Formats: sequence, C-alpha cells, structure tokens
Amino acid sequence: MIQVGIIGAGRIGKVHLQSISYQVKNATVKAVADPFMNDETRAFLESFGVKDIYTDYKKILADPEIDAVLICSSTDTHAAISIEAIEAGKHVFCEKPVDHSIEKINAVKKALAGKNLKFQVGFNRRFDHNFAAIRAAVDAGKIGDPHIVKITSRDPEPPNPAYIKVSGGIFLDMTIHDFDMACFLVNSQVDEIYVNSAVLVDPAIGEQGDVDTAIITMKMKNGALAVIDNSRRAAYGYDQRAEVFGSKGMVATSNDTLSSAVIADENGVTGEKPLYFFLERYMQSFATEMNQFIDAIVNDTEPPVGIEAGLQSVLIALAAKKSVAEHRPVKLEELL
Amino acid sequence: MIQVGIIGAGRIGKVHLQSISYQVKNATVKAVADPFMNDETRAFLESFGVKDIYTDYKKILADPEIDAVLICSSTDTHAAISIEAIEAGKHVFCEKPVDHSIEKINAVKKALAGKNLKFQVGFNRRFDHNFAAIRAAVDAGKIGDPHIVKITSRDPEPPNPAYIKVSGGIFLDMTIHDFDMACFLVNSQVDEIYVNSAVLVDPAIGEQGDVDTAIITMKMKNGALAVIDNSRRAAYGYDQRAEVFGSKGMVATSNDTLSSAVIADENGVTGEKPLYFFLERYMQSFATEMNQFIDAIVNDTEPPVGIEAGLQSVLIALAAKKSVAEHRPVKLEELL
Amino acid sequence: MIQVGIIGAGRIGKVHLQSISYQVKNATVKAVADPFMNDETRAFLESFGVKDIYTDYKKILADPEIDAVLICSSTDTHAAISIEAIEAGKHVFCEKPVDHSIEKINAVKKALAGKNLKFQVGFNRRFDHNFAAIRAAVDAGKIGDPHIVKITSRDPEPPNPAYIKVSGGIFLDMTIHDFDMACFLVNSQVDEIYVNSAVLVDPAIGEQGDVDTAIITMKMKNGALAVIDNSRRAAYGYDQRAEVFGSKGMVATSNDTLSSAVIADENGVTGEKPLYFFLERYMQSFATEMNQFIDAIVNDTEPPVGIEAGLQSVLIALAAKKSVAEHRPVKLEELL
Amino acid sequence: MIQVGIIGAGRIGKVHLQSISYQVKNATVKAVADPFMNDETRAFLESFGVKDIYTDYKKILADPEIDAVLICSSTDTHAAISIEAIEAGKHVFCEKPVDHSIEKINAVKKALAGKNLKFQVGFNRRFDHNFAAIRAAVDAGKIGDPHIVKITSRDPEPPNPAYIKVSGGIFLDMTIHDFDMACFLVNSQVDEIYVNSAVLVDPAIGEQGDVDTAIITMKMKNGALAVIDNSRRAAYGYDQRAEVFGSKGMVATSNDTLSSAVIADENGVTGEKPLYFFLERYMQSFATEMNQFIDAIVNDTEPPVGIEAGLQSVLIALAAKKSVAEHRPVKLEELL
Repeated sequence: MIQVGIIGAGRIGKVHLQSISYQVKNATVKAVADPFMNDETRAFLESFGVKDIYTDYKKILADPEIDAVLICSSTDTHAAISIEAIEAGKHVFCEKPVDHSIEKINAVKKALAGKNLKFQVGFNRRFDHNFAAIRAAVDAGKIGDPHIVKITSRDPEPPNPAYIKVSGGIFLDMTIHDFDMACFLVNSQVDEIYVNSAVLVDPAIGEQGDVDTAIITMKMKNGALAVIDNSRRAAYGYDQRAEVFGSKGMVATSNDTLSSAVIADENGVTGEKPLYFFLERYMQSFATEMNQFIDAIVNDTEPPVGIEAGLQSVLIALAAKKSVAEHRPVKLEELL
Repeated sequence: MIQVGIIGAGRIGKVHLQSISYQVKNATVKAVADPFMNDETRAFLESFGVKDIYTDYKKILADPEIDAVLICSSTDTHAAISIEAIEAGKHVFCEKPVDHSIEKINAVKKALAGKNLKFQVGFNRRFDHNFAAIRAAVDAGKIGDPHIVKITSRDPEPPNPAYIKVSGGIFLDMTIHDFDMACFLVNSQVDEIYVNSAVLVDPAIGEQGDVDTAIITMKMKNGALAVIDNSRRAAYGYDQRAEVFGSKGMVATSNDTLSSAVIADENGVTGEKPLYFFLERYMQSFATEMNQFIDAIVNDTEPPVGIEAGLQSVLIALAAKKSVAEHRPVKLEELL
Repeated sequence: MIQVGIIGAGRIGKVHLQSISYQVKNATVKAVADPFMNDETRAFLESFGVKDIYTDYKKILADPEIDAVLICSSTDTHAAISIEAIEAGKHVFCEKPVDHSIEKINAVKKALAGKNLKFQVGFNRRFDHNFAAIRAAVDAGKIGDPHIVKITSRDPEPPNPAYIKVSGGIFLDMTIHDFDMACFLVNSQVDEIYVNSAVLVDPAIGEQGDVDTAIITMKMKNGALAVIDNSRRAAYGYDQRAEVFGSKGMVATSNDTLSSAVIADENGVTGEKPLYFFLERYMQSFATEMNQFIDAIVNDTEPPVGIEAGLQSVLIALAAKKSVAEHRPVKLEELL
Repeated sequence: MIQVGIIGAGRIGKVHLQSISYQVKNATVKAVADPFMNDETRAFLESFGVKDIYTDYKKILADPEIDAVLICSSTDTHAAISIEAIEAGKHVFCEKPVDHSIEKINAVKKALAGKNLKFQVGFNRRFDHNFAAIRAAVDAGKIGDPHIVKITSRDPEPPNPAYIKVSGGIFLDMTIHDFDMACFLVNSQVDEIYVNSAVLVDPAIGEQGDVDTAIITMKMKNGALAVIDNSRRAAYGYDQRAEVFGSKGMVATSNDTLSSAVIADENGVTGEKPLYFFLERYMQSFATEMNQFIDAIVNDTEPPVGIEAGLQSVLIALAAKKSVAEHRPVKLEELL
C-alpha cells in the first residue's frame, strides 16, 4: 500500500484525494498539508480518513512513512517543493505546469537524475477516453502517417482578472494542456510555432497584457502540422475536440454531454451542451492518471508523463509568448 | 422519345411534369388533362411546352401519338382510367393507391394480362436515397438475415377533415407508403398484421371513424417482424426513418434536413428540423421513379413497382382496418 | 451510517458492494452471505472490508446491527427472503423481478403493510443518465402529452440454454426492464398488451418454449401507445435506445460508447459500437439507485421504485406470455 | 429571356449549360465556343438545343443577340476575354480565379467602370446550402460577434502534376475558394495572413515548387481570427466543413453524404463517406449561382459575387504565397 501525502488542498488536491480513496487500488492518502487549512477542509479530509492534516507541507516530506507526494500547490511553488520532495526520497506527482521557467524545470530534472524516483506531471487529458482513443487509432496505424493535428479548446468562462495576472498568461495556463495534447496525439515534439491572437472576449484580459482568443499553428518534429484554437469563453460551455488527419484517414472526437437526449420540436432538434468545465469533463481522467502514477511506483516502471513532457509543454508556451511579442514564427530551439 | 399524357393536373401531376421536363432523358409531356383546368394551371403547363391541354382525359387516351399516361387523378378514378388506358394500348403509371377495393385492382390486373404494356405504381419512396441505401445494404447481406424492420412515419399536419372522409382512412391514405416500404426493405410480403391505434391528435379525426396515431406490427412471410409507428402530426415536421435489424447487424437512416448547420449556444446544440413534407423530402425520388418508368418502356423491361405491389399494399391496409375493427391480429389470406 | 447486508454474492451483489463502498455516503456493507461462498469471493469481499461473510443468509437477518438487506439471490428465492427480511425488521432492496408469481409478490406487499420499512426494486435503468433525461423532458412538458413511447432493447448475446429454462422466459427475464421503462418514461401503467414474436436467433431457445425476437405493443392507461422491440442477439452489442413522442415534440436517446472517436477512411466514417452489456452500460445507474435507497432510509422517504412497480412489471410480463400463448391482445386486468 | 454564350466547353462549362437548361427560368444557352470542340461535345451541346457551336469565342462576342457570356476557359484567358466581352457589351460570369495577377484583375475593373454591365465571379460555394446556412446564422446574430472562423477543405485527390504546374499553386487553385468562404462567412476582408505548410501527400508536388498540406491563419478586418486547413488528398473523400465561433455561440456544418444510412455491425457503426468531389458535392450551388446571375441581369441588381470579391481572394492567395516564401506573416496591404 503506497502512502500518499497531498500538498495543497484546493480543488485539484481534493479531486486526487477522492480518486485515490475511491478508485485507486494500491494507495491511501495518509497526510494533507495546506497553509490555508480551515475547518471545512479539515472536516472534508477527515471524512476520507486522512490521518495527518498539516499547514506546513514540510511535515509531509519529513514523514518516513510517506512514499509519494502530490504537489497541488500554486504553480510558483511546484519546482521548489518538487526538489525538496525528491531530496526527501519521495515519488512526485506534480500538477502542470511544473514551472514557468525552463531553468527551474531543469533544476528539477537535475534533482531527479540518478535517483530511482518516479516523477509524473498532471497532464490528465492524456488519460481521457476520447483523446486516448485518438492516440490508440494513430498508434494502430488507422490513419496512416499523421499530416494534420487539430485541437479545439475553449473554456466556458475566463478566470478572474486577479488570477490572470499570476497565471503566466493563456499559453502557460490554458493552452499548455493543448500543447501537451498535440504532442501526445501524434507522439512528437514541436519544432516551430506561430500564434495569431486577439483580445475579443474581455478587454480586461488585454489590460493584463494577455490575450483571450488564439489560433496557434505548429510544425511538429515528425513533419505534421498542428493547429489549436482557443477562446476563454464559449457561450455553450467547455469545447474540447480533437482530430488527427493522415495519409490513410482521419480520427476525430466530439464533446461529451450529460446525456444523449435530443429534443425535436418546432425549434429544431436540440441536444445537450458539452459538460460544463474540466472537473465535470475530465473526472475519469484524474482517476486514471493517479492509478497509473501509483502503478508506476508499485511496478517500478516509467510514469506515463515524465519531466520531459513537462518541460516540452512549457517550452512551447514560452515560444508562443515570444511569437506574439515578436509577431513571427519562433523555433523552440531559440529558447534553449 | 416517349410521348406522355398526364391525367390530373394537381400537385403530384405537376411534380411529374417537372421531373419529365428537367430530369428524364427519353420522354416529353405532350398532353395534360384535368376536369378543373384553369388559367393559372394552363399557363403553368404552357411554360413547360405542353402542347395539348384538355379537360377530358379521354382525349389523351384517344391520341395515337401518346405512348404512356400518368394517372394522377383522384383515387376513386384510378382503376377505371387504368383499365381504359390499358385498353387504349397505353403504358400506365398510376399513383397510389391503385384503388381501395381488391376487386377493382384485380380488374386492372386482368386488363393487363397478356398485354405487353408497362404498369407502374407510384411508390416513390422506394427510389429515395435513404431507403434505397437500406435495401442495398440488406441485398448485399451486410446485416445478414432480416429479423426486425422498423419504420417511423409521422406527418407534420393532418389533412383537413373533408379529405379524411374520402381518404379511406389513415391506413389506405398514409400508412400505405409504409406498408409498401416494409415489404420493399426486406423484399418480402406480409403474412399477418395487428394494429394498436388511438385518436390523440384531433378528435375530429375520430369523429370521421378514423385514427391518427398507430403502432402496427406485422409478421413478414420471410419470418421477419415489422413495426410501423404513425402519427398525423409531428410538431417538428415530417419524420421519416427506417431501420432493418438482422443476424449480422443493423442498417438505419435518419431524417434529411435543409442543411447540416448546428448552432451551439446557451440553450444547447440545435440542428435543423426534418424537411417539411413529402414534396420537400421526396422530390428526388419522384424524378427517379419517373426515369425508371420511362426506362422500362424504352428497354422493354419490368417496371420496378408493378401491380402486385399495388395490390399487396392495399391488402395490408384493409387487413389493418379489419384488425382495428375486430381488435385482433388478422392474416392477409383472410381477405383473399 | 446504515449497516447493509448483501444476500447473494454473484455478479450483481458484487456490483452493489462496490457502489456502496465507493459511491454511497451513508452506508457500509457489514455482511455478505452466499451458499456457494468460495475463497476467491471471500478474498474479494475482505478487500472491501466486509466483516461478516456467511453461507447462510439467515445470519444476516439475525444480526440486529444490520439495517438493510440487498436481495441478490436467485429469483425464485426473492419473495420468501423478502418476507423473512421484512419480518426481521430490515429495509429491503430486492433485485428484479420480485417473483414470477403475482400471488407471491402480493404476499410481500402484505408483509410490508403497516410496517415503516423501505422496499425498493432493482430497476436500475430508471437512474440511467439517458433515460432519466427523457423522463425529465416529459415531466417538464417539453414534448407535450405523450402519444408514443418506443424502446429498443437488444442484448449482445443470449444467455445459455440452462439459464433460459429457469429464467421464466424473455418477458420476465429481459423485457421486464423495458416494461418498467415504458411505464417510467411516461409515468403511467399498462392497460393492454399484444406481442408479435419469433425464434430467429437460436432454435435452441425455441426448444425451451421461449422466443428470442419480439415486437410488443401496449396501450398505456394514460392513452399513449407503446412499442418495445427485443432481440437476444445484436451483432454490434447492447442496443438500448428510447424515444417518447408527444403533442409538442419528441425526446430520444442513443447508445453510449466508450469514446466519441470516429474514424473516416476509405470504408466510411466509423464510430464505436455501444458499450458491451449491462454492467458496462449501466454501472452509474447501479450506484445511483443504491444512493437513493440509502437516502430513503436515512431521510424516511418513499424509495423511488416500490413494490407496486415490481408488481406492475411482472403483471405486464405475464400478460405478454398470455398474448403469445393465445395470439391475441390481453388486458392486464385479466390477470388480477 | 436572356441569351447566354458559354466560352469553354470543359467540365464546368457543361455544368452551367445543364443548370441553365434545367433549373434557370429566364435564360437559354444560344452559343458555346471551345477551341478543342469535338464530335462528342458537339453532340452533347446539341442534345441541349444549343444553336451555335463555335471554336472561336469571338463569334459569341460578335453576336448581338447574346446578352451574357460565361467565361469557363483556362484561367490565363479569363481577364483578357472578360475585357473583350465587356467591351462587346456583354454581361460576364467569370470562373474563379479572375486571374493570377492583380494588375490584370484591375484592368477588368477598369473596363467595367461606368458600364451598366453585370460581372459575377464563380465562387459557387457561397450558394451551397450548408455554407449559406452558416452565413444566415451569423447575419441573424445567432452567434453574436464572430471571433473564430474555421474551414476544413481537403480534396480527395491531387490534380495531375502537369496541371499543378499551370495552376498557380495550391493557394490560387484550391484554397482560393476557402479564402473567399472565410470572407463570406463573416462578411469581412482579410488584414493579414500566415501560412504553415508542407509537402506530405506527394513529393512530385513539392518538385513543382508547390505544397500539398497547409494550415493558414488570418486576421480578418473585423477583428476575427480565421484558420483554414487544406490537404490535397483525404483518403475518405472531399472534406468540406466550416465553423464560425462567436460571442454568443457557434455554428458549424458537416459533410454531405449520398444517404444517411449507417450500418452497425461487429466493426462499429459506419456511415457513408462525404460526397466524392466538387461536382457531386456542390451541384446545387452551381445552379443557384447561375440563377442569381441571371436574376441580377433581369432585375438590374448587383450580382452577389462581384469583381471586388474576385480581387480580394487573389490578393489573399498571393499574400499566402509570399508568407510561405518569406516565412512570416504578411499584410495584404503589402501587395497593393
């Protein structure tokens, strides 16, 4: 039984606690730490049988019974806590992005080097039933050589302006999932990126120096072309579609809904909107990624999303920012 | 060039005139007769180059240049005019139903016997792209042996009460197309029928002794089971779907729409309603059936929908009426 | 915390154990009994923390700490154990059908009379996301007055012949879910039924005196017409669709699949087959029904599917058998 | 009755002849000219009642009875013949592109200036039922302010290498329709373009200095972002989809198929491929554009696709070529 400590008891920390409690066979959450621990959270944690509840995460790292930690704190603390955890001999599951800085991610890489510790980055969408089905079709050769990767990724609502300020911008905060997905779907890294973007949803976002609408094109290292379209606000909800087109055909997925019910009446034939947002849409994927993290520890295998994927996605995001700033295509090697 | 005369210049007569003018290669409409000919109709006919415009259809039958007649007059005249036309040596295309009486249809059969004249019944839906695709899949063995045939057939609006009175009731007027379709889709005749029906759309229909909603189950002679559901009024328009399920799989069709556009907004994801009614929905099939009728004449082959199909569908409709009246399953052989 | 005992550790008993362990807040499984208890099952139960593992269910009934029992044993024992459990003061969740005999179900009703005990029947499909969405649309008046209810219910594979022998036949074993669903979707009971059936899947089923393919039409007490089509073997998997058509429109659901991925290639555009069978398709509904059963106990409210629904569905199934035997429509009141 | 002359009796010239003969009320084709006139073509033309059949198009221009000409000759002759036709006082319908050179298109504009002659460019897709439905939804405000325009446009097969050489490249030959469509769908012109392209389908195309796969992003003058993805070969046929996303929602269209039939079997649920290529897919649009051209003449109104649209699309295509050559975003104003 793997003893797990969760650092950060916000929304995603709680999701992982539930996944491990209900759907992960060989793990149990022994401890949770959060600097803003309150009574409500404490009661929630206790209802899941969490034994040790702290405000200071260092107590988790100091507990020799803890095998693995989940880093669900704010992004700016990910890298430092990752390194501390590694040095304390813990396996690490780190939420995305690992950091906004390539140097800090490289420092995590260095800390990991030579240690037999597992490190997994929280790109949960790789474990989603739809996206996994695309990758499986690509791997099975059903569409031949990939030529075009298309991802539509639109949020139902923009975050509040205060969050945008610290988020690192749309590419490091939102599109980073899509960058990882583009790489995952055709099993390749990115060579070059160009961003066409605008502030169309809310001028307040522009005032933070960020954009809210973007079309991003990339050349993948395997020769395929990729395109992502993003909006911070889709009136109909969370739009999460993908498509890979290749020499022998195409594989595509559509949005998930609460039910397949369609109502035909004098207004037309109406189906449900997509599931509201990432918690509703990707709940199954959070459990699957956690299962695979624990499996990698138990079986001593490679975790499915390692530090290199964490690094690659941040590199792409930083190149995207540079493309916007300099209004030109940017090669990823420029950032190395 | 086949010279055609059209008897009856109502809605369906005009459709056939347009089909022959625009989409049928080897035929031309020389004459049209209608007892209620008016200036507007006359102008319409002349715009298509119709040379002879009559009130008396006998003038068409007397014209030795006419090769074929289309009988588009009221149902009660179909059988008598068919026989006159056959005796005048004309090929006949007769709108459905041939008649409400088995005896009269048999009289037409007798008139045809031994003559090398083509006789086609206007079951246009057999030529529809969707239904033809189902039959093609069945013929190709894609679903194996047919086990279940399902037809949904719902009109957008009931006819006016005056029409219902002379229509012979829902089974001879509306369902007759579905009866023919059930036979066509699995290439079999009907052995037994049971009708579960009600007056749910408009009490005025019930006052005419008719029903407006029905679920009809049949045993086909090839062993398959069939079910048709009918309503005289679907709020969302003309609902025309079919499905054949068999030992190896299922083939099914959905409704046609004006465009594939779907609008996603805060109310859901909304596509268009089905095309409004039979003229909008089945326009292509009217041209195809006419082409095949003319081809059968030109090439001296069997027309695709002969008098036997015309007889079978009326037999089923009469058995359906008997099932309602006697509240029991009825074998078609009871009516012979 | 409601202490639960499960009687019968077969497939469905295990499903309920998992639901209660992972997804039901206020309940825990204290005991499980099965006459054929083996080491594998015992290990499975222990991994979920089940304290008391018996071969004799009477030990569960005798345990004063047990609040509620789930009766997941073979159908022929349901009624007797239900009555014993009620007499022992336990709340009862009983798998469907309660029994094949109206008398025995009435005996359960009698046992329940005047006791403040909850009794729920395992019609899990009522809690399915798709079917619940249909009922919600009907309740919200979105389709107006219901006119036609259509259910397609086809299994991927027939059960083995030995099971068929004791199953009571297709109507009591398989269609019983669809009978309950027809009643549920339009919130009405059944007045009359007619069955059109055949042996098309496997002659061995016919040799047991059963059928494997059926089209069943019913008149509902609220005036709507209903139709169910069943097959014991759909080559493409478990086909579970429903539709309610009414004065203002229609609501319909389609099958669930593992993913929304479609592959377009030279063969066409291909999506996934339906989820394989009831465990894959209805897993969520098993958890939801269990949650509502526990909630009814905790809050002392009516369980969502009571003994009357259990009785009604068996009545319809028996009337269906009578319709086949006597080849005529049968009113349910004939069986009372 | 408008008398029409067709210059160029190739595939598209024949399509227009058929449209005018069968589906356009107020026009008739009097003359057709083609330098490569042969017996087969002559017989085809005669079967449609074409009176004057020439090898020299100047005879059409010299015929005072001809009101309008359709220029369906090779692209390099479009501009010169347009100018001659205008000078001869004929209304002109010119196939796309008007020319590869901005100067020559401007010369046509100059020739038109001050004359009361209609000039329409053959962007037939504007009249397609699906794309017209998107534009109608946008115009009706159903999606609010447009933010993102997405077009997928993939051919079933690349043209032969000899054609590619004279085609002006993918952007002037194939994407030009998509450029016009992007402008049409959101009723705006293009400000800037960036092209991400590759040779992935056939190295022979690369050897001609052309590309066969492209993702093209544009900024529209109204602020929306646009993206087009192109491939010269989709294994599953002609892929023609579009989507406009805006502040209030999204409207999208899917491919047309020969029928709506889907076959469910052990391999999945398979629908038909898209209609094969532009003649199959867009036949209705050719008739509609021709009707509107004739209507513009008859009613003396503006034709729906004028010389400015012809110019704009070529400008975008030339900017696209420049973007590929210089590997950077290009503003359209750079080309003026």
